[in-house]
This record gives sequence, C-alpha cells and structure tokens, in this order.
Amino acid sequence: MQAANTDTKTFLNDNFLLETHTAEILFHEYAKGLPIIDYHNHLPPDEIAADKTFPNLAAIWLNGDHYKWRAMRTLGIPERYITGDASDFEKFQKWAETAPYTIRNPLFHWTHLELQRYFGIKDLLSPKSAKDIYEHCSGLLPTPEYSTRNLLRKMNVAVVCSTDDPTDNLQHHRKAKADGLEIQMRPAFRPDKAILIEKEEFPRYLEKLGEVAGIEINDFNSLLQALHKRIAFFHDNGCRLSDHGLEQMYAAPFRPEQVDGALKKRLSGQELSPIEIQAFKSAVLFELSCRYAEKGWVQQFHLGALRNNSSRMMRQLGPDTGFDSIGDFNQAASLARFLDRLDSENKLAKTILYNLNPRDNEVMATMIGNFNDGSIRGKMQFGSAWWFLDQQDGMEKQLNALSNMGLLSCFIGMLTDSRSFLSFPRHEYFRRLLCNLIGRDVHNGLLPNDVEWLGEIVKDICYRNAKAYFGF
Amino acid sequence: MQAANTDTKTFLNDNFLLETHTAEILFHEYAKGLPIIDYHNHLPPDEIAADKTFPNLAAIWLNGDHYKWRAMRTLGIPERYITGDASDFEKFQKWAETAPYTIRNPLFHWTHLELQRYFGIKDLLSPKSAKDIYEHCSGLLPTPEYSTRNLLRKMNVAVVCSTDDPTDNLQHHRKAKADGLEIQMRPAFRPDKAILIEKEEFPRYLEKLGEVAGIEINDFNSLLQALHKRIAFFHDNGCRLSDHGLEQMYAAPFRPEQVDGALKKRLSGQELSPIEIQAFKSAVLFELSCRYAEKGWVQQFHLGALRNNSSRMMRQLGPDTGFDSIGDFNQAASLARFLDRLDSENKLAKTILYNLNPRDNEVMATMIGNFNDGSIRGKMQFGSAWWFLDQQDGMEKQLNALSNMGLLSCFIGMLTDSRSFLSFPRHEYFRRLLCNLIGRDVHNGLLPNDVEWLGEIVKDICYRNAKAYFGF
Amino acid sequence: MQAANTDTKTFLNDNFLLETHTAEILFHEYAKGLPIIDYHNHLPPDEIAADKTFPNLAAIWLNGDHYKWRAMRTLGIPERYITGDASDFEKFQKWAETAPYTIRNPLFHWTHLELQRYFGIKDLLSPKSAKDIYEHCSGLLPTPEYSTRNLLRKMNVAVVCSTDDPTDNLQHHRKAKADGLEIQMRPAFRPDKAILIEKEEFPRYLEKLGEVAGIEINDFNSLLQALHKRIAFFHDNGCRLSDHGLEQMYAAPFRPEQVDGALKKRLSGQELSPIEIQAFKSAVLFELSCRYAEKGWVQQFHLGALRNNSSRMMRQLGPDTGFDSIGDFNQAASLARFLDRLDSENKLAKTILYNLNPRDNEVMATMIGNFNDGSIRGKMQFGSAWWFLDQQDGMEKQLNALSNMGLLSCFIGMLTDSRSFLSFPRHEYFRRLLCNLIGRDVHNGLLPNDVEWLGEIVKDICYRNAKAYFGF
Repeated sequence: MQAANTDTKTFLNDNFLLETHTAEILFHEYAKGLPIIDYHNHLPPDEIAADKTFPNLAAIWLNGDHYKWRAMRTLGIPERYITGDASDFEKFQKWAETAPYTIRNPLFHWTHLELQRYFGIKDLLSPKSAKDIYEHCSGLLPTPEYSTRNLLRKMNVAVVCSTDDPTDNLQHHRKAKADGLEIQMRPAFRPDKAILIEKEEFPRYLEKLGEVAGIEINDFNSLLQALHKRIAFFHDNGCRLSDHGLEQMYAAPFRPEQVDGALKKRLSGQELSPIEIQAFKSAVLFELSCRYAEKGWVQQFHLGALRNNSSRMMRQLGPDTGFDSIGDFNQAASLARFLDRLDSENKLAKTILYNLNPRDNEVMATMIGNFNDGSIRGKMQFGSAWWFLDQQDGMEKQLNALSNMGLLSCFIGMLTDSRSFLSFPRHEYFRRLLCNLIGRDVHNGLLPNDVEWLGEIVKDICYRNAKAYFGF
Repeated sequence: MQAANTDTKTFLNDNFLLETHTAEILFHEYAKGLPIIDYHNHLPPDEIAADKTFPNLAAIWLNGDHYKWRAMRTLGIPERYITGDASDFEKFQKWAETAPYTIRNPLFHWTHLELQRYFGIKDLLSPKSAKDIYEHCSGLLPTPEYSTRNLLRKMNVAVVCSTDDPTDNLQHHRKAKADGLEIQMRPAFRPDKAILIEKEEFPRYLEKLGEVAGIEINDFNSLLQALHKRIAFFHDNGCRLSDHGLEQMYAAPFRPEQVDGALKKRLSGQELSPIEIQAFKSAVLFELSCRYAEKGWVQQFHLGALRNNSSRMMRQLGPDTGFDSIGDFNQAASLARFLDRLDSENKLAKTILYNLNPRDNEVMATMIGNFNDGSIRGKMQFGSAWWFLDQQDGMEKQLNALSNMGLLSCFIGMLTDSRSFLSFPRHEYFRRLLCNLIGRDVHNGLLPNDVEWLGEIVKDICYRNAKAYFGF
Repeated sequence: MQAANTDTKTFLNDNFLLETHTAEILFHEYAKGLPIIDYHNHLPPDEIAADKTFPNLAAIWLNGDHYKWRAMRTLGIPERYITGDASDFEKFQKWAETAPYTIRNPLFHWTHLELQRYFGIKDLLSPKSAKDIYEHCSGLLPTPEYSTRNLLRKMNVAVVCSTDDPTDNLQHHRKAKADGLEIQMRPAFRPDKAILIEKEEFPRYLEKLGEVAGIEINDFNSLLQALHKRIAFFHDNGCRLSDHGLEQMYAAPFRPEQVDGALKKRLSGQELSPIEIQAFKSAVLFELSCRYAEKGWVQQFHLGALRNNSSRMMRQLGPDTGFDSIGDFNQAASLARFLDRLDSENKLAKTILYNLNPRDNEVMATMIGNFNDGSIRGKMQFGSAWWFLDQQDGMEKQLNALSNMGLLSCFIGMLTDSRSFLSFPRHEYFRRLLCNLIGRDVHNGLLPNDVEWLGEIVKDICYRNAKAYFGF
C-alpha cells in the first residue's frame, strides 16, 4: 500500500480505486486494454443505426437518466427542472447544483469519470464550473467525433446487446450490420409482455405479436408458435440472449389444459384467478426457457425490483422515471424449482441470475452451484451487481459472495445495463475494483504473489470468459 | 493514515475512531462543537421538569438499562443483581465485573466514553476499579452540577424530543417551558395504544383517551375526533413529530363502514377477524398520517422489532426489560403501498423510516427515493441505525446504504432513542464515524480533498439539516 | 500494521491472516497451542475405531468432498472425474487443474493449509505440481503415522463429537473407549428421521427404531418412549449433544390427541394434511427438547438449508453430493415461539443456533439474548459460521454480529462440521481470524492495549468456554 497508504491520494487519478502496487499492475497491464463486451444494456438501436449525435450535454446526459433525477428530487429540485419544461441549460444547471451533494453516491464517481474519459475534463462539476463544462461538451457533442458509434469506439466496445421486444423488426440491428459496423450490435429477446397476462394491454399485445409472427394467437399452442417464430427470427439476426424482469421466479405447477383454458378465458375478456395467472406465467416461462436451451442461448433473469411505487408520478411520467426500489421478495424456493424442472428434462440453458436485493447475494451465489453440472465452464452465472447495486460496495459484495461460494475465475463480468452512451466507463470501474480486490489479497498474503497467473484470471473475467460464454 | 496507521493507537484518545488526518480535521473543526438536536428519545420529562439529581451511579446508569441487563444475563449473573433486591452497589459491582467481558460490544465504548465525558474518568471499569469509580461518580451525581438539565447542558444539547402517549397532559413540558429552560423539551406523539385493537387493554385505553379529549368514543369517527384533538393539543405544546412502533407497516385495504363496524364489535366485547384487525389498524394509521401532513409534522416509523419473546420474563418484569430481538418481517410491499396511498392524495408528511433488521437497509434506502418528490430537501429520511444497530458496524452500514442509494448530504443524522441522561456521547460517536467515513474516502482518493466543502456537509448532517427539517 | 502493511506478505506464512503485531502475539502466544474440542462434525466413527489409514491422497481428500466437487463442476469438469469411474489419480489431476481457479474461495486456503500442516508441502497445487504432491502424500498416508487417530493427534484434538442416528448401536464409540483412546470420541444424537413424518421411509424407520429400543411403536406415546430410551443409551455412551437440521423451526400449536391421531393415520398408510404434519413435527421436537434439558445436554439447530435442488443428480448420486444451497426462509417468529414455549416451562436446554443464510445473523445474535437468563454463562449460543459461510468473510460477519449484539467473550467457538480427517486446520483458521479481529481493534484504538486480558478471552473462546459449556 506504500505511498498510497500514507499520503492522501488525488481524486480520480490514474490509480483510482487501486490501493496496492499489485492492483496497479493488474489493472494497467492486464485489464485496461481489453475490449468491452457489453452483453446487456438498454441502448436505443436506432441511435446507433443512425450514428446520431447530440445537440448538447443535457441531451445526452440528463434525458432519461432516472439516477440523476432521483438525486435532484431528493435535494428538493422542482420537477420542472427535471422532466419539465425548463430549458436544457437550466436543467443542466440544476444538475450541476446537485452534483456536489452526491458525494459517496456512485453518481459522483460516474459524473467525473465520464467528464474525464469522454471530454478530458478534470474539473469538478458544480454551479461554478457548470457553464464552462456545458459549453465545452456541447461544442464537441454535435461533431462526428462524438457520434454514438464513435463514443462506443472511444471506449473500445466490441459488442453491445440491446434489449428488444419480440415484436421488434430489428431493422436497426440489420442496418448497422449492413453498414459493416465493426462493433457487433446484437438484439436480446425480452418477452415480458407476452407473459404478464393480467395486464390490461395483454390482449392487444398478443394481437400485435400474432401479426408480426403471421400467426393468429387464440390458444396456448399458437402463442408458443408465435414466440418460437420470433425466437428464430431474433436468432437469425444475431440474438444469443434473452432477458426477463420478474419480482420472483414463476415456478407454479401447471397443466397444459389449465394454461390453455386460462389464456382463452383472458382473451374472451374474463378475469383469471391468481392460481390461473401463476400457472400461465409459469408455463410460458418454462416453454420459452426450453427453446432458449435448444437454441444455445443464454437466459437472464433480473429478480426482485419493486416498481412504479408512486402511482401519482406513474400517471404523470410513466415507468422508468425514478420511482422504483428494491423489494424483499423470497427468491430461493421458486428459483430452485424453476431451474430444477428444466434441468430434469435436460433443457436448462446457460443462465445468468441477477438479484436486486443484496441480502439475496448468498442465495444466488449458492443457487448457481446446484446446476453447474460440468457440461461447460461457468454454465450458471451470478450476474454482476445491478442497478442500485452498481457501485463499489454493491459490486464488491457480489464479487465476494461469488468468490466465497463459487468460482470468481469463471465469472463473465460486467455489463452496463444502461440507456446512456456515456456509461461505458463503468466497465473500467468494475475492472479497477476487481484488480483491487485481488491485489489487496496478494498484498495481505491471502493469495500467492503470482501476478502473471492472476493477470490471466483478470483477463478471463474482464473479457475472455464472456467471449467464450456467449460465443461472440 | 500516517502515524495512526503504523503505531498502536491509545484507546479512546482524542482521535478515537478517526483514522485519517482529514477525519481529524472534519471532526475537531466542524462537527465537535455543534449543538445536539436529539429529535427522538425516551427521556422521562418529569425528571427534566424537576431538574432531578441522582443518588449514585447505579441509579442513573443501571436502572432501566436493558442493554447492560442482557449482557449481565449472558455472562451468567443472577437476576437478583440485575433487577432484583441486591443493593445498588452490589448491582454496580456485578456490572463492573461484566464490563471487561463486553469488549467489541457497543457497551464497552459507551461505558468508557460516558465515564470520560461526564466524570473525567479515564480508568477502565473492572472489579478492581469498581469501588473508586462508584464513589467518585456517586459523590458528584447528587450535586446540582449533575442535575438532568446540567447533564444535557454539558453535552451542548439544544433540543430533546421525548416520546409521549396521546393521553399525556404534557405538564412537564409546560413546566420546563414556564421555567424558561433554554433547552427545548418537546413532546412527540406516539399513539400505538390507539391502534392495537386486539390488545386486552384497548377498550380501557379508548375510555381514557375519550376522557382526556372530552369526547365519548363509540365509533370510528369519534375516535378520530379524539385523536385529532390530542394532535392539536400536542401541536400547541410544541410537538412536531409523531412516532409509531410496528412489526410491519399496516397497509391493508379498508372501507369506512368496515372499520367502524370492527371498532363497534370490539367495544361490545366481540372478537375480530384478522382481516378486521388489519383494516382497522390500516385505517387509523392512514387517518393519523393525513393529519400529521396537515400539521406539517414529521412522522417516524420504527419497523421490525420482535418484542417480549420470553413470556416468563414478561410476566416477571414487564416490557422493555431486555427480551426483545430483531425480527425478519417483509417490509417493502406494505411500506410502498402505505406511502403511495398518502402520496396519491397529496397527504404524505415528512417521514423517517427506521428498520431494525440491517438486511432491510437497502429496501429503506431505496424506498425513500420513491417519494422524494422535489418538494423539500430530504423529505423522506432513512433513519439512523437504531437499537441493536446503534454501534459502529450498524451505523456505518446505514450510512453506506444511504450514501450509495440516496443522498447522504441530506441526512438529518443522529438521535439517541435512549432512556438515559448519560447517553448523549452517542452523538459524538456518530459524528466521529461520519467524519471518519468521509475522511477515509478522501484519503483513498474516492473524494476530492476539499475539506471546506466536506466540512459544510458534515455540519449539515450533524446539525443544520435536522434544524431545517423539523423547524426547531 | 508496520511491515505487514507496507510490504507484500508471503502467502500462508507464519503470520497468515494476522495483520497486526497484537494479532501475532494473541495467536502465537495464546491461541495456537490450545487443544481442539471439535464438538460437531460428521467424521465416520468406524474409521476412528479401526484407526484406518488411506491408500492415497484422492481417497482421503476427494471422496465425499462436495465442496471440491462443486468447484470442479463449475469449471466444467465432467462427472466421470468427480464421482465417476476415473482412476483416483485421474480424479486428483482434475482437482489439481481446478485448484488454481479457486482463488478467493475457501478451498484455496484450505487446500494449501492442509498440504502444509499435514504433509509439510509448501508448493501450490496445480497441474504442474500434481504428480509430485500426489506421490509424496500417497507415500505417507498408508503409514501408521497417518492413521485417523494420528491425524487427529497431529492437530492436538482433545474431543470429537460425531453425528449419529438414534438407531446407531455406538459400537465404534465403545470400541474407541475400550481401546483407551485418549481422544474423547463422543456421539451426538440426530433424530431427524424420527421427525420427518411425510417422508416415504418414515414407517420403516419407526420400525427399526422400535426394534433397537425394544418397544413397539404404534402411537405417539410409544414413539416418545423409544426416543427416550435411545437418549438414555446415548447418554450412557458419553453423548451430551443433539443436533437437528431444519429449514425453519417447527413451532406450530399442537394437541396430544391430534399428534397421536396423525401418527396413527400415517402408520395406517393415510396421507396427512400440512397442519397435521406441522403439529406432529412440532410435538416431537418439543418433547425431545424437554428431554435434552432434563439430561443437561446441549441442543443444536442448523437452520435454513435448501437441499437436494437438482432432482436429476439426487437420483444419480443421492444426498450430500453438492446440490444444496442457502435458502431464504423466515426464521425469527417460529424460533422465538419454540424457545419461549420451552423456557416458559423451564425446560430450555443449552442451545446453539446455526443459520445458513448470513442475512439472518442479526436475528440469531439477538434471539439468543432473549433466553440468556443468568443461569449459566453463555447458555444460548449463536453458532460459528457454517457450511457455505465457513470462510473468512462468513466467519468475520458471525463474529461481528455476535460481538455487536451479544458477548463475544462467552462464545464457544469453532467446530469443523466436516466429514474429512484433514479439515482440522479450520480451527487454526478460525483462531487466526479471531486474533486478527481483536488485534486490529487494539491497533485502531478501539480496544485497550491489554494483551494479557485479551489473551485470556481468546483462550476462553478457542477452548475453555467449550470445555465448561459441554462439561467435557
């Protein structure tokens, strides 16, 4: 820990988050230069297809960023400056006013890391620096150098996987490919809407899905046929992952007639019992998972969010605007049942489990061990710290639980899960933390001082494991 | 970390808990001198009104201190020396025998911090030092310098908020005010007994409440009227907070007739169904919360204790004698529903959520974000670590969860929640921990080395935020 | 932290896990030399009775070790090399291939600690070193010096308590005693099979139990009689502990006729309702606990495992083969009810509670405080970190929760819970961690620098508390 440990370290310098000499070597010589496989995010494919540029810093940095919005609301900033009709610069000023109050929140690190990495700005964002920073960045952003594709290139991104509805025609993915874009932009299949049978919009959604698939959906069988056709279509367009967002895993018992009956009831406008709803969801999820396995896909499950908690703001702004939180659902039993059912029939796809409540870290870290069956390296994955946990403490807890109860060495590592083109330094953040944990263990005599071996493992976790796992 | 990190540090010296130079500056130059706003405690108002003194160290230090009692029972000390008929000095001797065995428990720090801060004693408490310490302190305690008010003054206490039943006549609060006491002693409204409809004593309690309010309570409406009158009375006597102690939030659906019917059934001696009980509790809580919002009060919820676990000792000693523990109730869904219902009707008061199980820290830290709506700074608060969590580890976890998922800078900080006049060094303890966390981040390059800015935030958290939040 | 903190420490040297000078003194001068009381494990008594030796390193190290199996499966090693028909050396090679990939998992420390402590090997296990290590160890293992008894002697083991079915005739325990073995080998009573009334094998088990006890079991009364006879038999053969493995504590209400009726129904081949099952289990557990209290035994409860999650592998390999995980059951309410019922009737035996999910640490740490009643020192114990938690992070969390919410000084310390004769360095591991935590607190000024006093507490926790608690 040498100098770093006795003198105060400069904020965000080259050795940010690296406390030991070993950590510095691991990061700078092994991790830093690797390409990025961002296998799960919410980037808008159209903006990559069009190679869009942004008019100013507010447009690329504040629009849709519910992390920043929550912070601003907490500080007492009126909604007008957040999602309202204030000007872009006024909104930015309010964010600049908020930034210094975000100390110890990941926003503080993200903000300054993004300013430094994309724009070379080393000043701290504050009301005093706001105008200069805004003008500097807003001068650069409309130039081709700051187009979406170039922003990705600046970060050495090799693959991005967006998140797409089964009804999507994937035109933007095809456009990017046709353009010969060297960055792989792949779709991921997220069929939540085909599962949430209790939602008002469900029948309308099935209609649309049927149209796109060219199949009239009037029973369970035709629903599955339509989904299978869309899976095939996605597969042909480069998709190798699915994703599901659930409070808890659906793993109720079901019988085919019951599920078919429930769907027909719903389509005829009748209300379903909770048991029918659970049976239907469990059946669709099971059938989809079987198909993912056949296709060799990876299935992802994001478990445990409690969403849209403010119905007042839901009415006003819609979903994903900063009113979600961490739930405390039980996860283990239904998750085990779901995975076991698939495994028993030899239909368990490669799987990534993400939990939103860190109290479930140990459940996840041990659950994957039950279904790692020697067939492939790291078949079951405990996904990187997600959303509210995407910060030093959350990431370290995930890495430690995984280390203690599984094999860190087989981990496929980081993803942004982000809607923002400026969020890719989070991979750097993850890599620094990973190198720091390993470096600290070496320093403390908990690991052998074999940097070459440890460096290979770092490279596996930061890049090579994901490359092999997804087959990209 | 300089010297502090290479040499063994003296126990409880000036830089206790401060690991870095930055932490030392933050504490000594910014935090230490600030007045204390102890916005939630269980101090007996009569003892402040009477400016009571204590006959000896056992009387002020051991009476009613269930933390110490539990430790003594764990060590195998018979009940006679704890709550029984042993003499004060015998009890103190047993506590002195126990103290060295409390290492790593907060009692060890509290004990020696209190001896040092109030009595200037730097010796460790042990059987060897017991007699001298007892005699020294018991010599001082009966003098005016050690009266309740002077003990508060010694710690620079500006405000204390006691916890009071709605039927309380608040005579002691009025007496203190009439005396011109410069320390604000304010009541807080804790109406648990008006909600717990299933308890045997409920009808008797409503009778008493009706008498005090001058309203005959025979239906839901008259119950609410009585409560509203008491809220008004409390408000007129300086009250600005309410408090509720619940296993889980009551947020069941209810209809007015149903609630009215349930209350009448109960008053006529009939038994209620669990659904009726939940509906009643949810309704009273909702109505009270609406009124708190109208009055501009802060509402506090202490969630998740599992109380009176030993029925044998409950019969023998009553509640609050050391037989409570941390429960593992689910909290998120009912809490979200409760807050949303109020928020939807624009009747959500400023709110502080305290969880007793640290596994719920992240639920709380993200729940407040759902209802921070930009109306005022830090409207929703994740309360400081409480009861069993009131120690270094518990407090740091709360501060870290809040930092990572919310804005630490908007936090209103520490409270003692204590029955003891000697417990106020816990504010110092909190301030040291806070300064240490921030100082450590600066040292490690995780925060900019801008002590002036960070010092202002420290001052906000230790004093100014609470002052503005409560309007004291 | 001196040198240790500025220079990189050698892996697994004499001061492994000891970060401060105080920690070094505490470990080397107080903890290291103490005998081991391994009061809960799964060692095979027959192998101690026969003083068995092992033919090679795979036989003693890989057979039955589901920790290693899980790691190998995660890395993608086919089952043939794990539980299949590959040769011992082939299996060992695959384990050697896996070992370097277990960095940061406890397996990495265990592996090298065991090689060093038992065989004097300081090399790291890897494909390169595999052959030499295998041959070296396999040369030693068949010699008398490496017999089971001598392996225990090598580690200074004074007592081992195995885990035994009530129907066991304890011949191996009697043989060892008759041999004059100076290591106490005691049985522990684990009657899970007499409780799990819903299992297919239950009637067959009762038949066997009846035979062994010489009592025909045809109602609840005769079942209890049989169990009581076996308890007496175990007691006469040195047993002083029982053990139960449960998802959650059974603490449902029950009436004698109901329980008797349920058992008769089951024995006559009828199916039971969930309520009947719960009542039966709660009744048997209650009655057993009463008897344990009468006998002065210690009762252990291992709570919260979710077992046999892969039904495919369960069919193939049976239980305890690496397909279990951490569950997320609620624990507090039923645990409190169970303990209170016994305590109310003054029939609460000394009790150790083990939780598998670390999110329950604080529930356990505070639950014991409710029933520590001053009758004996540390009557209620929060058991050491278990199974998946048996690693640095898990053990430190347990020690910290216990410290913060109870008295660390009264803790009875470590046990292996292991099936392996090579697992006893885990006591050393625990002792190092304990000394390190205390040493770090001294170093940081959180504890007085009184090594003599702290050393006595270390000795209590590592040996003397257990000795007094169990009366060994």
